[in-house]
Amino acid sequence: MGRTGIRTVCKVDFDTPASEQPYLHVIPFAGTIKDGETVKIECLDWTGGQIKNDDCADDVKNVDLTKVHYLSGPFEVEGAMPGDLLLVEIMDVQPFEDRPWGFTGIFDRRNGGGFLNEIYPSAAKAIWDFEGIYCTSRHIPHVKFAGLIHPGILGCAPSAEVLENWNRREGELIAANKLDRDVALPPQPLSVHAGSADKSLTEKVGREGARTIPGRPEHGGNCDIKNLSRGSKVYLPVHVPGAKFSVGDLHFSQGDGEISFCGAIEMAGVITVNCSVIPNGVANLGLKSPVYIPGPVEPQFGPGRYIYFEGFSVDEQGRQHYMDVTVAYRQTTLRCIEYLRRFGYSDYQIYLLLSCAPVQGHVAGIVDIPNACTTLGLPMDIFDFDISPSAAATAGGVRRRDMGRCAFETGRTEGEVRGDSGRNGQVSFGGGLSYRE
Amino acid sequence: MGRTGIRTVCKVDFDTPASEQPYLHVIPFAGTIKDGETVKIECLDWTGGQIKNDDCADDVKNVDLTKVHYLSGPFEVEGAMPGDLLLVEIMDVQPFEDRPWGFTGIFDRRNGGGFLNEIYPSAAKAIWDFEGIYCTSRHIPHVKFAGLIHPGILGCAPSAEVLENWNRREGELIAANKLDRDVALPPQPLSVHAGSADKSLTEKVGREGARTIPGRPEHGGNCDIKNLSRGSKVYLPVHVPGAKFSVGDLHFSQGDGEISFCGAIEMAGVITVNCSVIPNGVANLGLKSPVYIPGPVEPQFGPGRYIYFEGFSVDEQGRQHYMDVTVAYRQTTLRCIEYLRRFGYSDYQIYLLLSCAPVQGHVAGIVDIPNACTTLGLPMDIFDFDISPSAAATAGGVRRRDMGRCAFETGRTEGEVRGDSGRNGQVSFGGGLSYRE
Amino acid sequence: MGRTGIRTVCKVDFDTPASEQPYLHVIPFAGTIKDGETVKIECLDWTGGQIKNDDCADDVKNVDLTKVHYLSGPFEVEGAMPGDLLLVEIMDVQPFEDRPWGFTGIFDRRNGGGFLNEIYPSAAKAIWDFEGIYCTSRHIPHVKFAGLIHPGILGCAPSAEVLENWNRREGELIAANKLDRDVALPPQPLSVHAGSADKSLTEKVGREGARTIPGRPEHGGNCDIKNLSRGSKVYLPVHVPGAKFSVGDLHFSQGDGEISFCGAIEMAGVITVNCSVIPNGVANLGLKSPVYIPGPVEPQFGPGRYIYFEGFSVDEQGRQHYMDVTVAYRQTTLRCIEYLRRFGYSDYQIYLLLSCAPVQGHVAGIVDIPNACTTLGLPMDIFDFDISPSAAATAGGVRRRDMGRCAFETGRTEGEVRGDSGRNGQVSFGGGLSYRE
Amino acid sequence: MGRTGIRTVCKVDFDTPASEQPYLHVIPFAGTIKDGETVKIECLDWTGGQIKNDDCADDVKNVDLTKVHYLSGPFEVEGAMPGDLLLVEIMDVQPFEDRPWGFTGIFDRRNGGGFLNEIYPSAAKAIWDFEGIYCTSRHIPHVKFAGLIHPGILGCAPSAEVLENWNRREGELIAANKLDRDVALPPQPLSVHAGSADKSLTEKVGREGARTIPGRPEHGGNCDIKNLSRGSKVYLPVHVPGAKFSVGDLHFSQGDGEISFCGAIEMAGVITVNCSVIPNGVANLGLKSPVYIPGPVEPQFGPGRYIYFEGFSVDEQGRQHYMDVTVAYRQTTLRCIEYLRRFGYSDYQIYLLLSCAPVQGHVAGIVDIPNACTTLGLPMDIFDFDISPSAAATAGGVRRRDMGRCAFETGRTEGEVRGDSGRNGQVSFGGGLSYRE
Repeated sequence: MGRTGIRTVCKVDFDTPASEQPYLHVIPFAGTIKDGETVKIECLDWTGGQIKNDDCADDVKNVDLTKVHYLSGPFEVEGAMPGDLLLVEIMDVQPFEDRPWGFTGIFDRRNGGGFLNEIYPSAAKAIWDFEGIYCTSRHIPHVKFAGLIHPGILGCAPSAEVLENWNRREGELIAANKLDRDVALPPQPLSVHAGSADKSLTEKVGREGARTIPGRPEHGGNCDIKNLSRGSKVYLPVHVPGAKFSVGDLHFSQGDGEISFCGAIEMAGVITVNCSVIPNGVANLGLKSPVYIPGPVEPQFGPGRYIYFEGFSVDEQGRQHYMDVTVAYRQTTLRCIEYLRRFGYSDYQIYLLLSCAPVQGHVAGIVDIPNACTTLGLPMDIFDFDISPSAAATAGGVRRRDMGRCAFETGRTEGEVRGDSGRNGQVSFGGGLSYRE
Repeated sequence: MGRTGIRTVCKVDFDTPASEQPYLHVIPFAGTIKDGETVKIECLDWTGGQIKNDDCADDVKNVDLTKVHYLSGPFEVEGAMPGDLLLVEIMDVQPFEDRPWGFTGIFDRRNGGGFLNEIYPSAAKAIWDFEGIYCTSRHIPHVKFAGLIHPGILGCAPSAEVLENWNRREGELIAANKLDRDVALPPQPLSVHAGSADKSLTEKVGREGARTIPGRPEHGGNCDIKNLSRGSKVYLPVHVPGAKFSVGDLHFSQGDGEISFCGAIEMAGVITVNCSVIPNGVANLGLKSPVYIPGPVEPQFGPGRYIYFEGFSVDEQGRQHYMDVTVAYRQTTLRCIEYLRRFGYSDYQIYLLLSCAPVQGHVAGIVDIPNACTTLGLPMDIFDFDISPSAAATAGGVRRRDMGRCAFETGRTEGEVRGDSGRNGQVSFGGGLSYRE
Repeated sequence: MGRTGIRTVCKVDFDTPASEQPYLHVIPFAGTIKDGETVKIECLDWTGGQIKNDDCADDVKNVDLTKVHYLSGPFEVEGAMPGDLLLVEIMDVQPFEDRPWGFTGIFDRRNGGGFLNEIYPSAAKAIWDFEGIYCTSRHIPHVKFAGLIHPGILGCAPSAEVLENWNRREGELIAANKLDRDVALPPQPLSVHAGSADKSLTEKVGREGARTIPGRPEHGGNCDIKNLSRGSKVYLPVHVPGAKFSVGDLHFSQGDGEISFCGAIEMAGVITVNCSVIPNGVANLGLKSPVYIPGPVEPQFGPGRYIYFEGFSVDEQGRQHYMDVTVAYRQTTLRCIEYLRRFGYSDYQIYLLLSCAPVQGHVAGIVDIPNACTTLGLPMDIFDFDISPSAAATAGGVRRRDMGRCAFETGRTEGEVRGDSGRNGQVSFGGGLSYRE
Repeated sequence: MGRTGIRTVCKVDFDTPASEQPYLHVIPFAGTIKDGETVKIECLDWTGGQIKNDDCADDVKNVDLTKVHYLSGPFEVEGAMPGDLLLVEIMDVQPFEDRPWGFTGIFDRRNGGGFLNEIYPSAAKAIWDFEGIYCTSRHIPHVKFAGLIHPGILGCAPSAEVLENWNRREGELIAANKLDRDVALPPQPLSVHAGSADKSLTEKVGREGARTIPGRPEHGGNCDIKNLSRGSKVYLPVHVPGAKFSVGDLHFSQGDGEISFCGAIEMAGVITVNCSVIPNGVANLGLKSPVYIPGPVEPQFGPGRYIYFEGFSVDEQGRQHYMDVTVAYRQTTLRCIEYLRRFGYSDYQIYLLLSCAPVQGHVAGIVDIPNACTTLGLPMDIFDFDISPSAAATAGGVRRRDMGRCAFETGRTEGEVRGDSGRNGQVSFGGGLSYRE
């Protein structure tokens, strides 16, 4: 006889609001997967369709961050028990055939923000078109690269005990916060996604349900690891009976750090996974966090085809920080922006590009006080012209090209956004690890 | 006729104290390199020979950190002027044929410390034997890997203005310090290495000379980038006439982060470099920090031959930190230690191994508040037994082997060092970017 | 707004005989592609659906080789003229979602044969199931690998002059043949596929149309290059106005040599290509044959994860041949069969596996008379057990596993096929570069 | 304490004729290696120093091919017995520090010849200078690449029975030869290298000793496998007590096929090997020929940085051959020569380059009668200008540079050698697997 396909355990519908769909984070679960089974799971993009394929970033600016991360699942995996490991092998990730595009966004500093939002406070957007393994963008010309396609989020549901621990420690951070910005987000009742749950359970979800924004050590979650791509095997700790595996936030590509926050090439699509249970795997391996083994088909450029930028924990005001890798990595990204700017790209275009292209962000030296050193490797072969320093440094300067522009909010120009000194960097978004019954 | 060799511009002598050698950071300079010339430069190990090839870590414990970093140089490169770039191509790095060994050390928490010194406060050491491209250690059995050999330090001398800036900003950090440890090290008069300088210049060096411990954005310096290996091209900003290029601190291998501080496989050896000047390169490229392009001969394992560990900015006490990559990377290394411990290695052995083996430390996600996520990729093929999670998780637990022990200080055992709760984590070391005339 | 998909210029229908379908090698052409356009092209498997997903190789044994290679096309590319180059970028190749399987066959020596048909004369078959990037086979257990997916055939139509040249030179070879087998296949009237052509044109096609079996230097054709995969760019000489580009014979994976003839993992599927015309490219580049640049997403194993077998031009009867790479490569494959046999696989299983797995076949030394030397690299990581020689050579012999069996013809067992000394190695197949109008 | 180096078991002397040196293929053996020991072995270049570092190819033209392959060894490995495997791990290969150069030669068609000697019959030479991992040549400008350094020859001595078999089968080939060239070389008394052997043994060696020119299946020998480089492990069958391991013919780099015969970058140097005995390994693994596993430090370019040329078994006269891989590979190399010629290189320069640069020669399709297809991958990054077809095909033709010239024999110019139609392609050389006692 022979096989005629792989079972799809989650279908999405682009004409129905995410909150009303039957497989997107519903309570108690969206379906069952057999131990050892390979299934297809459809996923919305992480904003649930809020961002459009057009040339205006108003949608990014005004995104409703209480209505994101409508993950596919959770799925019950037969036989999985707390203390087991769920081995998820990512057999493939693909965009939908009739939606061959994705987006990268820079959030407005007052609604989401990003890694460089003190410097680049305005909303911006690039749309990417997919043709097979490759993507290009009308908003960032002269660039083409193969996707290192992956899910931004996957993990098993927390137990009540784990959830309580999350709420405790993140609550303590919030309570101690003296910064002029959100440092973590507590559970919140707004836009609670609890499906057929009754009123009291819905309220409980709103009160206790952890947000899906951060990845967390106990289950992985929104870890945004760019190499967790086709062919990867990830070992996920199981905290509740049936594992309750969820997945979503598919990325066509992402750079290390995903720096603009909405920074990957975000897309809707289908992930094919094989799920199998390793009894007592958590104890056998002594795992406190997921581990994974990458797949064999990552795009390869050869080491000599990267330019590496160096950054140290001295900030752009010349202030010395003590061994702060976060500061060092920010500097590293700025060094790359300064470099590429000379070829004609705007800073916003580069900020978008570094968020989504397969750049390699490394911790280089982390012990030489007071300076941490990080590096960022930019693959030269994603450009259709020569960006190598040898060429650029000697030619009497580089040739600036007309690089067009990325999408901004209505009425904004590149010049204006550069001058923008928008105060009030509150990060504010919502969503939650909530279910619909 | 034909070539008969490459000119050696710096020779070292293992029977003479480093401070008395004629090519090690002398004033005004150690020699001259022509624009476009390839030269060999001999280097001491970074401790100037303080660490011995034996099985006791007393030398590590008692290392004199005011007598380190006797770099080779500085070399005047003909024609180089401030604002130029010095393009240094690393043609090769080799240990001395008659000294085929190196060392990795964990400093005592009270004398140097390291990335995990609150957990592992005692001195320890592993000696590595070199056979061609490979190294092995009697102190960490069942491991063999090819060196990703490189200089830990290279850069051009700072101008007076740059030096003043360093002292200003690092001084401010020291002044504001409220931690129970050194956060940076000011210039200091002890063990000043100023050679034939007169008394007043020597005192000035002691007063103003920057330490070489940290890498710094303006010139690179002690950046400890493991991939700056054979075949790499590095573009170094020139700050003074003649560039005054220095190099040293050779590493047979290093992991991303070099976490145990004396963490690479430290060695004496010879580096072969080609130096050429790119006029006005700093302005042409808009460089504020060095950039580099890796060489083509890095050891390759294939992406599917790594286990990746994940870490988040929740520390080992369960405290939540805000987007702190340093905390996240510390957790990532701890996850790896916990994993490997099960095979029979002691924590100190693994700490040493992660410092020097070619592990990949990546910034994964840096925007999902409050958790930064980092990953650490451990190549499975450096072990001569199977460490893959599939094998380990299912076999009813792994087989523990007798892994011997690494070197400790006299009288200490593994059990004791584990129980050690040594307070007072002052980092204290010296050396300086000083010259001998 | 936004894109909603890529135009499909060729659809196939699995319920209609290949010879009656409207896009499969029809005269004058199957459709038009714009210069610069990306299109999807559906393709049948190369046997046009003759081989079934079952456990019996009767279909392989009795395959009708006059009814194969129903290619998709030819497509007219707007503006292409003789002397131009057609640059075809392979954006993706995928199996049909509802046909996630393919086959590898060994033809009966009397009907097709293969590279080792004097030793392995019987028909055999393995069915491969696809799950995302990976394939596995119930007929060759303990093996899984990522497809290096590609078209076996692509090229532009020959001009009358080129066609005449082909018929001349291959006719001369046939005329001079003294071997006990076909050495080339002349045009033949049987099963002429000339569509709406009138009787006289159909007869002309049968009389003059070149077979598509061999690749040919002037246009590439059935070159069976395993690395012409996703992301590759191939530069094809144009011989007739409109280029008349055809493509087909999709392979999920293939080893260098495709040794069992029906040796790739043959499949039906969809190829996405971008076509652009380079005016006068043939002259500008001086091209006599196609050139190509591979794509960036080839599966990577790391060089140290291959076992390389060596073979020389001394045949299995101990007879010395003069610099014969063909003999040397045959020996190399036999060395690999002997090696893998020890783990429990049958020779036919291994013969199938070496045909379709991504093995690397290299010309090593070709000048040391009388022995050519070739090597074959077998990736160890496609097996789920350890096949390394270190393990196997020392353990007191390897553990033989129950490896089941591949599919044979009705009534045949592995034992019988091994004893089979079937004479009469005539290779005989048909098909033709013919069109339907 | 500590290690001070690795034992050197063979030293060579550049001021003494090879035939008089004490470690070069002497009888009974040159030294003893312990089971498990790592040793250094010095080697002459394969011509024993006949080729000079100058700009004239007279030495190549007049090379004495009866005085080549003075291998280092044989070495007795303690405990090795017939039927065992000798596992040789190549820890490193290096040129001598004071001889940082090598040569690539094209032999005169009447004295040695090469793969393309019917087209390029004259002697030519390129000298390569080494700087660390890289080489460059004044005779082939604008090219630089990292060496994939390796021994051309390594193997264990044949037993009397194996030797008899070699002489039998190669004698039969010679007896049946009807070609206008040597097809193999019998033992010959000229320049017998039998050292302290008495007259009768010396005569026996001259009568029966096999030449070392070809690699042979039973022991490997002169296999010229370019990837048998640093870090490789090769498993060699042992035929006589003590194994009698020999090695030599070091190559700084070589292309697949080593097409110009003296085609690698030939050099004198030092190889560091670890030797260990695997008892009964031949039977345990069922090995008839050596197998090897490459090392991890091969130069990497990324798949997309190669141009692949295709060749088929139709020769340059338009004659069709039947499945002849040798013909196909010759065509493939010619396609590459035609391509590079356009940039200003002479054919002889390119012929030399393809012999020694790390080009990838693959068997692509070997079953599609009558055409075998082979490919040759040329790494673009070894050139310091852009050779990609996209650039070259569209720019209105490429820019021809002044590429100077390679070395020819006295009085010959490039124009003359091209017009040379020297008949008489006899290949004629000597040397032998002979010993000195």
